Amino acid sequence: MARILNVGICQMEVVDNKELNLATAARMIREAAAEGCQLAVLPEMFNCPYARHYFPVYAEPIPGLTSMRMSELARETGIYLIAGSIPERDGEQIFNTSMVFSPEGKMIARHRKLHLFDVDIPGGITFFESDTLSPGKDVTVFNTAHGRMGLAICYDLRFPELARTMTLQGAEVIIYPGAFNQVTGPLHWEILLRARAVDNQVFVLAASPANTPGGVYPAYGHSMIVDPWGKVIAEAGRREELITARIDLEAVDQVRKEIPVLKHRRPEIYTC
Amino acid sequence: MARILNVGICQMEVVDNKELNLATAARMIREAAAEGCQLAVLPEMFNCPYARHYFPVYAEPIPGLTSMRMSELARETGIYLIAGSIPERDGEQIFNTSMVFSPEGKMIARHRKLHLFDVDIPGGITFFESDTLSPGKDVTVFNTAHGRMGLAICYDLRFPELARTMTLQGAEVIIYPGAFNQVTGPLHWEILLRARAVDNQVFVLAASPANTPGGVYPAYGHSMIVDPWGKVIAEAGRREELITARIDLEAVDQVRKEIPVLKHRRPEIYTC
Repeated sequence: MARILNVGICQMEVVDNKELNLATAARMIREAAAEGCQLAVLPEMFNCPYARHYFPVYAEPIPGLTSMRMSELARETGIYLIAGSIPERDGEQIFNTSMVFSPEGKMIARHRKLHLFDVDIPGGITFFESDTLSPGKDVTVFNTAHGRMGLAICYDLRFPELARTMTLQGAEVIIYPGAFNQVTGPLHWEILLRARAVDNQVFVLAASPANTPGGVYPAYGHSMIVDPWGKVIAEAGRREELITARIDLEAVDQVRKEIPVLKHRRPEIYTC
Repeated sequence: MARILNVGICQMEVVDNKELNLATAARMIREAAAEGCQLAVLPEMFNCPYARHYFPVYAEPIPGLTSMRMSELARETGIYLIAGSIPERDGEQIFNTSMVFSPEGKMIARHRKLHLFDVDIPGGITFFESDTLSPGKDVTVFNTAHGRMGLAICYDLRFPELARTMTLQGAEVIIYPGAFNQVTGPLHWEILLRARAVDNQVFVLAASPANTPGGVYPAYGHSMIVDPWGKVIAEAGRREELITARIDLEAVDQVRKEIPVLKHRRPEIYTC
Protein backbone atom coordinates (compact mmCIF):
# COMPACT_ATOMS: atom_id res chain seq x y z
CA MET A 1 0.00 0.00 0.00
CA ALA A 2 2.96 2.26 0.55
CA ARG A 3 3.21 2.42 -3.23
CA ILE A 4 -0.02 4.44 -3.34
CA LEU A 5 0.26 8.00 -2.11
CA ASN A 6 -1.46 11.34 -2.26
CA VAL A 7 0.66 14.17 -3.57
CA GLY A 8 0.03 17.89 -3.43
CA ILE A 9 1.54 20.78 -5.33
CA CYS A 10 1.42 24.17 -3.68
CA GLN A 11 1.22 26.73 -6.48
CA MET A 12 1.80 29.63 -4.11
CA GLU A 13 2.11 33.37 -4.63
CA VAL A 14 5.66 34.62 -4.14
CA VAL A 15 6.10 38.25 -3.18
CA ASP A 16 8.94 40.56 -2.19
CA ASN A 17 8.72 39.61 1.50
CA LYS A 18 10.45 36.50 2.78
CA GLU A 19 8.38 36.15 5.95
CA LEU A 20 5.17 36.41 3.99
CA ASN A 21 6.42 33.77 1.54
CA LEU A 22 7.30 31.41 4.37
CA ALA A 23 3.86 31.97 5.89
CA THR A 24 2.15 31.24 2.56
CA ALA A 25 4.22 28.07 2.17
CA ALA A 26 3.29 26.97 5.71
CA ARG A 27 -0.40 27.57 5.08
CA MET A 28 -0.43 25.59 1.85
CA ILE A 29 1.67 22.71 3.22
CA ARG A 30 -0.76 22.40 6.15
CA GLU A 31 -3.64 22.48 3.67
CA ALA A 32 -2.05 19.67 1.65
CA ALA A 33 -1.54 17.60 4.80
CA ALA A 34 -5.12 18.25 5.87
CA GLU A 35 -6.27 16.92 2.51
CA GLY A 36 -4.37 13.70 3.15
CA CYS A 37 -1.20 14.29 1.14
CA GLN A 38 1.88 12.28 2.09
CA LEU A 39 4.09 14.48 -0.08
CA ALA A 40 3.92 18.17 -0.95
CA VAL A 41 5.95 20.25 -3.42
CA LEU A 42 6.71 23.97 -3.32
CA PRO A 43 7.73 25.98 -6.41
CA GLU A 44 11.14 27.17 -7.56
CA MET A 45 12.28 30.25 -5.60
CA PHE A 46 9.34 30.04 -3.20
CA ASN A 47 10.90 32.34 -0.62
CA CYS A 48 12.27 34.93 -3.04
CA PRO A 49 10.98 36.72 -6.14
CA TYR A 50 12.42 35.15 -9.27
CA ALA A 51 14.67 37.99 -10.42
CA ARG A 52 18.45 38.19 -10.45
CA HIS A 53 18.94 41.13 -8.15
CA TYR A 54 16.84 39.54 -5.38
CA PHE A 55 18.92 36.36 -5.21
CA PRO A 56 21.90 37.84 -3.28
CA VAL A 57 19.52 39.74 -0.98
CA TYR A 58 17.36 36.73 -0.10
CA ALA A 59 20.16 34.16 -0.12
CA GLU A 60 20.76 32.21 3.09
CA PRO A 61 22.84 29.22 4.12
CA ILE A 62 21.58 25.70 4.67
CA PRO A 63 20.90 25.10 7.50
CA GLY A 64 19.31 28.53 7.86
CA LEU A 65 16.00 30.21 8.50
CA THR A 66 14.09 28.68 5.58
CA SER A 67 15.51 25.18 5.93
CA MET A 68 14.68 25.15 9.66
CA ARG A 69 11.13 26.32 9.04
CA MET A 70 10.64 23.68 6.36
CA SER A 71 12.07 20.94 8.54
CA GLU A 72 9.64 21.89 11.30
CA LEU A 73 6.72 21.92 8.87
CA ALA A 74 7.57 18.47 7.51
CA ARG A 75 7.75 17.11 11.06
CA GLU A 76 4.62 18.92 12.21
CA THR A 77 2.55 17.63 9.28
CA GLY A 78 4.31 14.26 8.94
CA ILE A 79 4.77 14.51 5.19
CA TYR A 80 7.60 14.44 2.68
CA LEU A 81 8.25 18.05 1.81
CA ILE A 82 10.00 19.01 -1.41
CA ALA A 83 10.89 22.59 -0.61
CA GLY A 84 10.87 24.03 -4.15
CA SER A 85 14.01 26.08 -4.22
CA ILE A 86 15.70 29.01 -2.53
CA PRO A 87 18.80 31.06 -3.23
CA GLU A 88 21.38 29.20 -1.13
CA ARG A 89 24.48 31.04 0.00
CA ASP A 90 27.61 28.92 0.30
CA GLY A 91 30.68 31.06 0.85
CA GLU A 92 30.98 33.43 -2.11
CA GLN A 93 28.59 31.43 -4.24
CA ILE A 94 24.82 31.37 -4.54
CA PHE A 95 23.01 28.26 -5.78
CA ASN A 96 19.40 27.67 -6.82
CA THR A 97 18.74 24.86 -4.35
CA SER A 98 15.86 22.52 -3.57
CA MET A 99 15.63 20.61 -0.30
CA VAL A 100 13.75 17.43 0.59
CA PHE A 101 12.59 16.77 4.15
CA SER A 102 11.35 13.46 5.53
CA PRO A 103 8.19 13.23 7.67
CA GLU A 104 10.59 13.30 10.64
CA GLY A 105 11.96 16.68 9.54
CA LYS A 106 15.31 15.37 8.37
CA MET A 107 16.81 16.84 5.20
CA ILE A 108 17.27 13.73 3.04
CA ALA A 109 18.26 15.36 -0.25
CA ARG A 110 19.38 18.65 -1.71
CA HIS A 111 19.50 19.55 -5.39
CA ARG A 112 21.44 22.46 -6.77
CA LYS A 113 20.13 23.47 -10.21
CA LEU A 114 22.51 22.01 -12.76
CA HIS A 115 21.66 24.00 -15.87
CA LEU A 116 21.43 27.75 -15.47
CA PHE A 117 18.83 29.64 -17.49
CA ASP A 118 20.80 31.98 -19.74
CA VAL A 119 18.36 32.81 -22.45
CA ASP A 120 17.78 35.69 -24.83
CA ILE A 121 14.62 35.64 -26.92
CA PRO A 122 14.33 38.96 -28.77
CA GLY A 123 10.94 40.48 -28.08
CA GLY A 124 10.35 37.67 -25.60
CA ILE A 125 12.37 36.99 -22.49
CA THR A 126 15.94 37.72 -21.49
CA PHE A 127 17.34 36.18 -18.33
CA PHE A 128 20.89 35.37 -17.30
CA GLU A 129 20.87 33.33 -14.10
CA SER A 130 24.60 32.83 -14.28
CA ASP A 131 25.13 36.53 -13.55
CA THR A 132 24.33 35.81 -9.91
CA LEU A 133 24.04 32.03 -9.53
CA SER A 134 26.46 29.10 -9.66
CA PRO A 135 25.49 25.70 -11.06
CA GLY A 136 25.38 22.48 -9.05
CA LYS A 137 27.28 19.40 -10.05
CA ASP A 138 25.26 16.42 -8.84
CA VAL A 139 22.29 14.44 -10.06
CA THR A 140 19.75 14.08 -7.24
CA VAL A 141 17.78 10.91 -6.57
CA PHE A 142 16.45 9.94 -3.13
CA ASN A 143 14.49 7.20 -1.40
CA THR A 144 11.15 7.60 0.31
CA ALA A 145 8.91 5.07 2.03
CA HIS A 146 6.84 5.09 -1.17
CA GLY A 147 9.48 4.81 -3.87
CA ARG A 148 12.59 6.37 -5.35
CA MET A 149 12.36 9.89 -6.68
CA GLY A 150 14.44 12.27 -8.77
CA LEU A 151 14.61 16.03 -8.31
CA ALA A 152 15.64 18.80 -10.70
CA ILE A 153 14.80 22.45 -11.18
CA CYS A 154 13.12 24.35 -14.03
CA TYR A 155 15.63 24.69 -16.89
CA ASP A 156 17.02 21.26 -15.93
CA LEU A 157 13.74 20.02 -17.43
CA ARG A 158 14.94 20.85 -20.95
CA PHE A 159 17.65 18.19 -20.74
CA PRO A 160 16.33 14.70 -21.51
CA GLU A 161 19.73 13.31 -20.58
CA LEU A 162 19.23 14.38 -16.98
CA ALA A 163 15.78 12.82 -16.66
CA ARG A 164 17.12 9.62 -18.20
CA THR A 165 20.06 9.63 -15.81
CA MET A 166 17.71 9.97 -12.82
CA THR A 167 15.55 7.17 -14.23
CA LEU A 168 18.52 4.86 -14.68
CA GLN A 169 19.39 5.63 -11.07
CA GLY A 170 15.98 4.30 -10.08
CA ALA A 171 13.60 7.26 -10.11
CA GLU A 172 9.92 6.33 -10.42
CA VAL A 173 8.78 9.90 -9.80
CA ILE A 174 10.57 13.01 -11.05
CA ILE A 175 9.87 16.31 -9.36
CA TYR A 176 10.46 19.67 -11.05
CA PRO A 177 9.95 22.90 -9.16
CA GLY A 178 10.04 25.39 -12.01
CA ALA A 179 9.18 28.96 -12.88
CA PHE A 180 8.52 28.99 -16.61
CA ASN A 181 7.31 32.36 -17.88
CA GLN A 182 4.57 33.66 -20.15
CA VAL A 183 6.67 33.03 -23.25
CA THR A 184 8.24 29.64 -22.61
CA GLY A 185 5.32 28.38 -20.52
CA PRO A 186 2.66 28.26 -23.23
CA LEU A 187 5.24 26.96 -25.71
CA HIS A 188 6.95 24.20 -23.79
CA TRP A 189 5.94 23.58 -20.15
CA GLU A 190 3.36 20.85 -20.78
CA ILE A 191 5.14 19.19 -23.70
CA LEU A 192 8.39 18.91 -21.73
CA LEU A 193 6.72 17.54 -18.60
CA ARG A 194 4.69 15.00 -20.56
CA ALA A 195 7.70 14.00 -22.63
CA ARG A 196 9.80 13.30 -19.53
CA ALA A 197 6.95 11.16 -18.17
CA VAL A 198 6.46 9.21 -21.41
CA ASP A 199 10.14 8.71 -22.21
CA ASN A 200 11.06 7.59 -18.72
CA GLN A 201 7.76 6.03 -17.69
CA VAL A 202 7.69 7.97 -14.45
CA PHE A 203 5.24 10.20 -12.66
CA VAL A 204 6.17 13.86 -13.03
CA LEU A 205 5.28 16.48 -10.42
CA ALA A 206 5.85 20.09 -11.46
CA ALA A 207 5.40 23.06 -9.15
CA SER A 208 5.25 26.62 -10.48
CA PRO A 209 4.78 29.83 -8.50
CA ALA A 210 1.34 31.37 -8.99
CA ASN A 211 1.00 34.16 -11.51
CA THR A 212 0.48 37.22 -9.34
CA PRO A 213 -1.20 40.25 -10.91
CA GLY A 214 1.39 43.01 -10.76
CA GLY A 215 3.96 40.58 -9.36
CA VAL A 216 7.72 40.78 -9.85
CA TYR A 217 7.93 37.77 -12.17
CA PRO A 218 5.34 36.69 -14.75
CA ALA A 219 5.21 32.99 -13.81
CA TYR A 220 3.21 30.73 -16.08
CA GLY A 221 1.53 28.75 -13.31
CA HIS A 222 -0.07 25.51 -14.58
CA SER A 223 1.53 23.26 -11.97
CA MET A 224 0.98 19.75 -13.15
CA ILE A 225 0.92 16.07 -12.24
CA VAL A 226 1.56 13.66 -15.12
CA ASP A 227 1.25 9.87 -15.04
CA PRO A 228 3.76 7.43 -16.59
CA TRP A 229 1.66 7.18 -19.78
CA GLY A 230 2.07 10.94 -20.23
CA LYS A 231 -1.46 11.83 -19.20
CA VAL A 232 -1.99 15.05 -17.24
CA ILE A 233 -3.96 13.94 -14.16
CA ALA A 234 -4.04 17.28 -12.34
CA GLU A 235 -3.33 20.82 -13.48
CA ALA A 236 -3.56 24.22 -11.83
CA GLY A 237 -4.66 27.43 -13.48
CA ARG A 238 -2.55 30.59 -13.24
CA ARG A 239 -3.43 31.73 -9.72
CA GLU A 240 -2.60 30.44 -6.25
CA GLU A 241 -3.97 26.94 -5.89
CA LEU A 242 -3.28 23.56 -4.30
CA ILE A 243 -3.63 20.63 -6.67
CA THR A 244 -3.57 17.03 -5.50
CA ALA A 245 -3.68 13.55 -6.96
CA ARG A 246 -3.62 9.99 -5.72
CA ILE A 247 -0.82 8.20 -7.54
CA ASP A 248 -0.05 4.50 -7.62
CA LEU A 249 3.56 3.67 -8.39
CA GLU A 250 2.41 0.25 -9.62
CA ALA A 251 1.55 2.16 -12.81
CA VAL A 252 5.28 2.66 -13.35
CA ASP A 253 5.92 -1.08 -13.17
CA GLN A 254 2.96 -1.72 -15.45
CA VAL A 255 3.95 0.59 -18.29
CA ARG A 256 7.58 -0.52 -18.07
CA LYS A 257 6.39 -4.10 -18.45
CA GLU A 258 4.11 -3.34 -21.39
CA ILE A 259 6.52 -1.09 -23.34
CA PRO A 260 9.94 -2.04 -21.98
CA VAL A 261 11.94 0.89 -23.38
CA LEU A 262 14.42 0.85 -20.52
CA LYS A 263 15.26 -2.78 -21.28
CA HIS A 264 15.45 -2.04 -25.00
CA ARG A 265 17.97 0.78 -24.67
CA ARG A 266 21.22 0.30 -26.60
CA PRO A 267 23.73 2.38 -24.66
CA GLU A 268 26.62 1.01 -26.72
CA ILE A 269 25.23 3.02 -29.65
CA TYR A 270 24.45 6.40 -28.07
CA THR A 271 27.13 9.05 -27.80
CA CYS A 272 25.31 11.73 -25.88
CA MET B 1 18.33 29.81 -50.27
CA ALA B 2 19.30 26.18 -50.16
CA ARG B 3 18.34 26.26 -46.49
CA ILE B 4 14.68 26.68 -47.45
CA LEU B 5 13.04 23.61 -48.91
CA ASN B 6 9.67 22.06 -49.55
CA VAL B 7 9.17 18.66 -48.00
CA GLY B 8 6.44 16.14 -48.63
CA ILE B 9 5.27 13.13 -46.69
CA CYS B 10 3.55 10.38 -48.62
CA GLN B 11 1.06 8.76 -46.26
CA MET B 12 0.35 5.92 -48.64
CA GLU B 13 -1.86 2.85 -48.43
CA VAL B 14 0.14 -0.34 -48.06
CA VAL B 15 -1.51 -3.57 -49.22
CA ASP B 16 -0.57 -7.21 -49.65
CA ASN B 17 0.85 -6.69 -53.15
CA LYS B 18 4.39 -5.42 -53.58
CA GLU B 19 3.94 -4.20 -57.15
CA LEU B 20 0.88 -2.24 -56.17
CA ASN B 21 2.75 -0.70 -53.22
CA LEU B 22 5.63 0.33 -55.46
CA ALA B 23 3.16 1.87 -57.91
CA THR B 24 1.43 3.81 -55.10
CA ALA B 25 4.81 5.06 -53.85
CA ALA B 26 5.76 6.16 -57.38
CA ARG B 27 2.48 8.00 -57.85
CA MET B 28 2.80 9.89 -54.57
CA ILE B 29 6.49 10.71 -55.03
CA ARG B 30 5.68 12.19 -58.46
CA GLU B 31 2.83 14.12 -56.88
CA ALA B 32 5.19 15.54 -54.24
CA ALA B 33 7.68 16.54 -56.93
CA ALA B 34 4.92 18.13 -58.99
CA GLU B 35 3.98 20.20 -55.96
CA GLY B 36 7.54 21.50 -55.76
CA CYS B 37 8.98 19.29 -53.01
CA GLN B 38 12.74 18.86 -52.90
CA LEU B 39 12.44 15.98 -50.45
CA ALA B 40 9.82 13.28 -49.99
CA VAL B 41 9.38 10.65 -47.29
CA LEU B 42 7.67 7.26 -47.52
CA PRO B 43 6.37 5.36 -44.49
CA GLU B 44 7.84 2.43 -42.59
CA MET B 45 7.34 -0.86 -44.46
CA PHE B 46 5.93 0.87 -47.52
CA ASN B 47 6.36 -2.12 -49.80
CA CYS B 48 5.13 -4.77 -47.36
CA PRO B 49 2.24 -5.08 -44.90
CA TYR B 50 3.44 -4.46 -41.36
CA ALA B 51 3.02 -7.95 -39.93
CA ARG B 52 5.69 -10.41 -38.92
CA HIS B 53 4.87 -13.25 -41.28
CA TYR B 54 5.05 -10.97 -44.34
CA PHE B 55 8.59 -9.77 -43.64
CA PRO B 56 10.39 -12.94 -44.83
CA VAL B 57 8.10 -13.20 -47.86
CA TYR B 58 8.59 -9.59 -48.99
CA ALA B 59 12.25 -9.30 -47.97
CA GLU B 60 14.75 -8.45 -50.69
CA PRO B 61 18.41 -7.49 -50.83
CA ILE B 62 19.79 -4.00 -51.35
CA PRO B 63 20.40 -3.38 -54.19
CA GLY B 64 17.22 -5.13 -55.30
CA LEU B 65 13.91 -4.47 -56.97
CA THR B 66 12.65 -1.82 -54.53
CA SER B 67 15.95 0.02 -54.13
CA MET B 68 16.37 0.20 -57.91
CA ARG B 69 12.86 1.53 -58.41
CA MET B 70 13.38 4.16 -55.72
CA SER B 71 16.73 5.21 -57.15
CA GLU B 72 15.08 5.69 -60.53
CA LEU B 73 12.25 7.70 -59.01
CA ALA B 74 14.64 10.00 -57.14
CA ARG B 75 16.57 10.63 -60.37
CA GLU B 76 13.45 11.04 -62.48
CA THR B 77 11.91 13.59 -60.11
CA GLY B 78 15.19 15.17 -59.00
CA ILE B 79 14.35 15.05 -55.29
CA TYR B 80 15.82 13.59 -52.13
CA LEU B 81 13.83 10.45 -51.46
CA ILE B 82 13.68 8.92 -48.00
CA ALA B 83 12.35 5.52 -48.87
CA GLY B 84 10.51 4.72 -45.62
CA SER B 85 11.55 1.19 -44.90
CA ILE B 86 11.45 -2.29 -46.36
CA PRO B 87 12.30 -5.74 -45.04
CA GLU B 88 15.92 -6.08 -46.19
CA ARG B 89 17.38 -9.54 -46.63
CA ASP B 90 21.10 -9.83 -45.86
CA GLY B 91 22.18 -13.47 -45.76
CA GLU B 92 20.15 -15.21 -43.08
CA GLN B 93 19.04 -11.96 -41.50
CA ILE B 94 16.20 -9.57 -42.21
CA PHE B 95 16.45 -5.90 -41.20
CA ASN B 96 13.85 -3.12 -41.14
CA THR B 97 15.77 -0.74 -43.40
CA SER B 98 15.28 2.77 -44.69
CA MET B 99 17.16 4.11 -47.70
CA VAL B 100 17.97 7.66 -48.75
CA PHE B 101 18.48 8.57 -52.42
CA SER B 102 19.97 11.78 -53.75
CA PRO B 103 18.36 13.70 -56.63
CA GLU B 104 20.89 11.91 -58.84
CA GLY B 105 19.53 8.53 -57.73
CA LYS B 106 22.51 7.60 -55.57
CA MET B 107 21.85 5.81 -52.27
CA ILE B 108 23.52 8.17 -49.79
CA ALA B 109 22.36 6.60 -46.51
CA ARG B 110 20.77 3.45 -45.16
CA HIS B 111 19.31 3.03 -41.67
CA ARG B 112 18.58 -0.32 -40.11
CA LYS B 113 16.06 0.04 -37.27
CA LEU B 114 18.04 -0.05 -34.04
CA HIS B 115 15.33 -0.78 -31.49
CA LEU B 116 12.96 -3.62 -32.29
CA PHE B 117 9.34 -3.30 -31.23
CA ASP B 118 8.75 -6.13 -28.78
CA VAL B 119 5.70 -5.02 -26.91
CA ASP B 120 2.87 -6.69 -25.07
CA ILE B 121 -0.02 -4.51 -23.92
CA PRO B 122 -2.78 -6.78 -22.55
CA GLY B 123 -6.06 -5.95 -24.27
CA GLY B 124 -4.08 -3.60 -26.50
CA ILE B 125 -1.34 -4.60 -28.88
CA THR B 126 1.16 -7.45 -28.95
CA PHE B 127 3.99 -7.42 -31.44
CA PHE B 128 7.39 -9.06 -31.41
CA GLU B 129 9.49 -7.77 -34.28
CA SER B 130 12.53 -9.65 -33.06
CA ASP B 131 10.83 -12.94 -33.98
CA THR B 132 11.67 -12.24 -37.60
CA LEU B 133 13.88 -9.13 -37.68
CA SER B 134 17.43 -8.32 -36.63
CA PRO B 135 18.42 -4.93 -35.22
CA GLY B 136 20.87 -2.53 -36.88
CA LYS B 137 23.91 -1.21 -35.10
CA ASP B 138 24.58 2.27 -36.52
CA VAL B 139 23.24 5.77 -35.97
CA THR B 140 22.34 7.35 -39.31
CA VAL B 141 23.03 10.99 -40.18
CA PHE B 142 23.57 12.23 -43.74
CA ASN B 143 24.27 15.42 -45.67
CA THR B 144 22.01 17.00 -48.24
CA ALA B 145 22.38 20.19 -50.24
CA HIS B 146 19.97 21.75 -47.73
CA GLY B 147 21.38 20.60 -44.42
CA ARG B 148 22.32 17.61 -42.32
CA MET B 149 19.61 15.12 -41.44
CA GLY B 150 19.12 12.16 -39.10
CA LEU B 151 17.05 9.08 -39.84
CA ALA B 152 15.47 6.52 -37.54
CA ILE B 153 12.47 4.21 -37.67
CA CYS B 154 9.30 4.05 -35.57
CA TYR B 155 10.16 2.49 -32.18
CA ASP B 156 13.57 4.22 -32.41
CA LEU B 157 11.50 7.36 -31.74
CA ARG B 158 10.93 6.30 -28.12
CA PHE B 159 14.62 6.72 -27.32
CA PRO B 160 15.58 10.33 -26.60
CA GLU B 161 19.22 9.25 -26.47
CA LEU B 162 19.15 8.36 -30.14
CA ALA B 163 17.64 11.67 -31.23
CA ARG B 164 20.19 13.50 -29.09
CA THR B 165 23.01 11.46 -30.59
CA MET B 166 21.86 12.35 -34.12
CA THR B 167 21.61 16.00 -33.09
CA LEU B 168 25.11 16.03 -31.63
CA GLN B 169 26.25 14.55 -34.93
CA GLY B 170 24.81 17.59 -36.66
CA ALA B 171 21.22 16.74 -37.58
CA GLU B 172 18.98 19.76 -38.17
CA VAL B 173 16.11 17.61 -39.42
CA ILE B 174 15.19 14.19 -38.03
CA ILE B 175 13.09 11.88 -40.16
CA TYR B 176 11.01 9.05 -38.70
CA PRO B 177 9.16 6.66 -40.96
CA GLY B 178 6.91 4.92 -38.44
CA ALA B 179 3.85 2.74 -38.18
CA PHE B 180 2.33 3.48 -34.81
CA ASN B 181 -0.97 1.70 -34.23
CA GLN B 182 -4.43 2.56 -32.93
CA VAL B 183 -3.32 2.07 -29.30
CA THR B 184 0.11 3.71 -29.17
CA GLY B 185 -0.73 6.29 -31.85
CA PRO B 186 -3.35 8.28 -29.96
CA LEU B 187 -1.30 7.95 -26.75
CA HIS B 188 2.18 8.88 -27.88
CA TRP B 189 2.78 9.64 -31.58
CA GLU B 190 2.38 13.42 -31.40
CA ILE B 191 3.95 13.92 -27.97
CA LEU B 192 7.05 11.94 -28.94
CA LEU B 193 7.50 13.74 -32.27
CA ARG B 194 7.04 17.16 -30.70
CA ALA B 195 9.33 16.29 -27.79
CA ARG B 196 12.15 15.24 -30.14
CA ALA B 197 11.71 18.54 -32.00
CA VAL B 198 11.67 20.68 -28.84
CA ASP B 199 14.49 18.87 -27.04
CA ASN B 200 16.82 18.87 -30.02
CA GLN B 201 15.60 22.02 -31.75
CA VAL B 202 15.23 20.25 -35.07
CA PHE B 203 12.52 19.83 -37.66
CA VAL B 204 10.87 16.43 -37.39
CA LEU B 205 9.30 14.68 -40.38
CA ALA B 206 7.23 11.59 -39.57
CA ALA B 207 5.69 9.33 -42.20
CA SER B 208 3.03 6.76 -41.32
CA PRO B 209 1.25 4.36 -43.65
CA ALA B 210 -2.38 5.30 -44.25
CA ASN B 211 -5.03 3.56 -42.21
CA THR B 212 -6.71 1.29 -44.73
CA PRO B 213 -10.23 0.10 -43.94
CA GLY B 214 -9.99 -3.67 -43.66
CA GLY B 215 -6.21 -3.49 -44.08
CA VAL B 216 -3.67 -5.92 -42.62
CA TYR B 217 -2.29 -3.46 -40.04
CA PRO B 218 -4.25 -0.78 -38.16
CA ALA B 219 -1.82 2.11 -38.75
CA TYR B 220 -2.52 5.33 -36.90
CA GLY B 221 -1.81 7.65 -39.83
CA HIS B 222 -1.34 11.28 -38.73
CA SER B 223 1.93 11.82 -40.57
CA MET B 224 3.35 15.03 -39.26
CA ILE B 225 5.83 17.85 -39.79
CA VAL B 226 7.01 19.61 -36.63
CA ASP B 227 9.14 22.76 -36.42
CA PRO B 228 12.08 23.28 -34.03
CA TRP B 229 9.80 25.06 -31.52
CA GLY B 230 7.68 21.92 -31.35
CA LYS B 231 4.79 23.30 -33.36
CA VAL B 232 2.95 20.92 -35.69
CA ILE B 233 3.01 22.69 -39.06
CA ALA B 234 1.39 19.96 -41.15
CA GLU B 235 -0.58 16.86 -40.20
CA ALA B 236 -2.39 14.19 -42.18
CA GLY B 237 -5.61 12.50 -41.20
CA ARG B 238 -5.95 8.72 -41.17
CA ARG B 239 -6.34 8.03 -44.89
CA GLU B 240 -4.00 8.20 -47.87
CA GLU B 241 -2.77 11.74 -48.25
CA LEU B 242 0.27 13.81 -49.26
CA ILE B 243 1.18 16.54 -46.80
CA THR B 244 3.74 19.21 -47.56
CA ALA B 245 5.41 22.15 -45.85
CA ARG B 246 7.97 24.79 -46.69
CA ILE B 247 10.66 24.64 -44.03
CA ASP B 248 13.48 27.07 -43.39
CA LEU B 249 16.46 25.58 -41.60
CA GLU B 250 17.37 29.07 -40.39
CA ALA B 251 14.70 28.41 -37.75
CA VAL B 252 17.01 25.78 -36.28
CA ASP B 253 19.84 28.29 -35.92
CA GLN B 254 17.40 30.82 -34.48
CA VAL B 255 15.95 28.67 -31.70
CA ARG B 256 19.39 27.31 -30.83
CA LYS B 257 20.59 30.86 -30.44
CA GLU B 258 17.65 31.95 -28.31
CA ILE B 259 17.53 28.90 -26.02
CA PRO B 260 21.02 27.41 -26.31
CA VAL B 261 20.33 24.02 -24.71
CA LEU B 262 22.94 22.24 -26.78
CA LYS B 263 25.60 24.63 -25.46
CA HIS B 264 24.28 24.30 -21.91
CA ARG B 265 24.51 20.50 -21.82
CA ARG B 266 26.67 19.06 -19.05
CA PRO B 267 27.77 15.71 -20.44
CA GLU B 268 30.19 15.20 -17.55
CA ILE B 269 27.14 14.75 -15.31
CA TYR B 270 24.92 12.46 -17.35
CA THR B 271 25.35 8.71 -17.14
CA CYS B 272 22.86 7.53 -19.71
